[in-house]
Amino acid sequence: MVLAPWRSPIARALHRNRSLVYARYLQLATVRPDGRPANRTVVFRGFRDDTNQLMFIADDRSEKIEQVEHSAWAEVCWYFPNTREQFRLLGTLTIVKQDYLEEDLQQARRSMWQNLSDSARVQFDWAHPGKPKTEGSSPPPPSPTEPLPHFCLLLLEPSQVDHLELRGEPQNRYLYHQEADQSWNKQEVNP
Amino acid sequence: MVLAPWRSPIARALHRNRSLVYARYLQLATVRPDGRPANRTVVFRGFRDDTNQLMFIADDRSEKIEQVEHSAWAEVCWYFPNTREQFRLLGTLTIVKQDYLEEDLQQARRSMWQNLSDSARVQFDWAHPGKPKTEGSSPPPPSPTEPLPHFCLLLLEPSQVDHLELRGEPQNRYLYHQEADQSWNKQEVNP
Repeated sequence: MVLAPWRSPIARALHRNRSLVYARYLQLATVRPDGRPANRTVVFRGFRDDTNQLMFIADDRSEKIEQVEHSAWAEVCWYFPNTREQFRLLGTLTIVKQDYLEEDLQQARRSMWQNLSDSARVQFDWAHPGKPKTEGSSPPPPSPTEPLPHFCLLLLEPSQVDHLELRGEPQNRYLYHQEADQSWNKQEVNP
Repeated sequence: MVLAPWRSPIARALHRNRSLVYARYLQLATVRPDGRPANRTVVFRGFRDDTNQLMFIADDRSEKIEQVEHSAWAEVCWYFPNTREQFRLLGTLTIVKQDYLEEDLQQARRSMWQNLSDSARVQFDWAHPGKPKTEGSSPPPPSPTEPLPHFCLLLLEPSQVDHLELRGEPQNRYLYHQEADQSWNKQEVNP
């Protein structure tokens, strides 16, 4: 596996913005089954080993899962406040649910679960997200080793990346496209 | 005109996050003509007088304009770091270009132009955004009164708002829906 050429500017941005916990928050856009867009904040959970896939987590009862099952295309928008730069990553999402058959991805799902805090894990025991408010029960902390059934790993495989540096003079913008042979090309474009 | 009930929590969030210039940055998701989502950061430019419409600006050569002409639906995702809350506003976009006929919106476009800084105005004289990089010329500062031809005002008219407060215990989430008679209802839902 070769690191895509946009990995290095993202690593640099993560490093230079590490003082801000929310520099790891980004916005994930998907398309609803009726064709309208949806957009929400998610937490970047790292790249999957030996791939260029961004990892997120999700509850399989949330609307985004239904949307992704209808259309796998997504674009994340990632703004870094300290360095004033933006990455837009367009690609397809894979949902790794409890019944996902491929063992290496199921193992990635378990590892992600094991790395979560108790307070993150317990959210997958909460009442159905988006439904009328119900009184929260206080379930015991879930197993730290075996994921709860609603827990999913989400993987974004980018095929196009748009990097904008607002700090340039005037500004700098680079487009990365993945070719049919999986190689990447990089082009400097007007901001 | 009655202020929609989600205006007050947004006003409060803007106030409590006013120390962060980027608390006025939000992510605008639209749908490309081929059905894939697009997502980018835009700057919130206030609400249009006597309406619940959010104002943004855009260059009429940017891809978002073509996308909105194809499908007017958009969802903005607005995360406020200090108060740890998120607003998702789903609605339709109106593009007010140079040739837009309605005079009150054309006046709103001019007012927006007049309120911009020189450095914001000159961007509408730059080379075609997204095209291969061309050497930047240094045009003189544009007229502060009459908008450049590529300058557009974008108006988002929300019909659904999803407000999530991460700070709650466990968390609080409210959904606002606009009814056929234009009134709004508010429902508390599970986070």
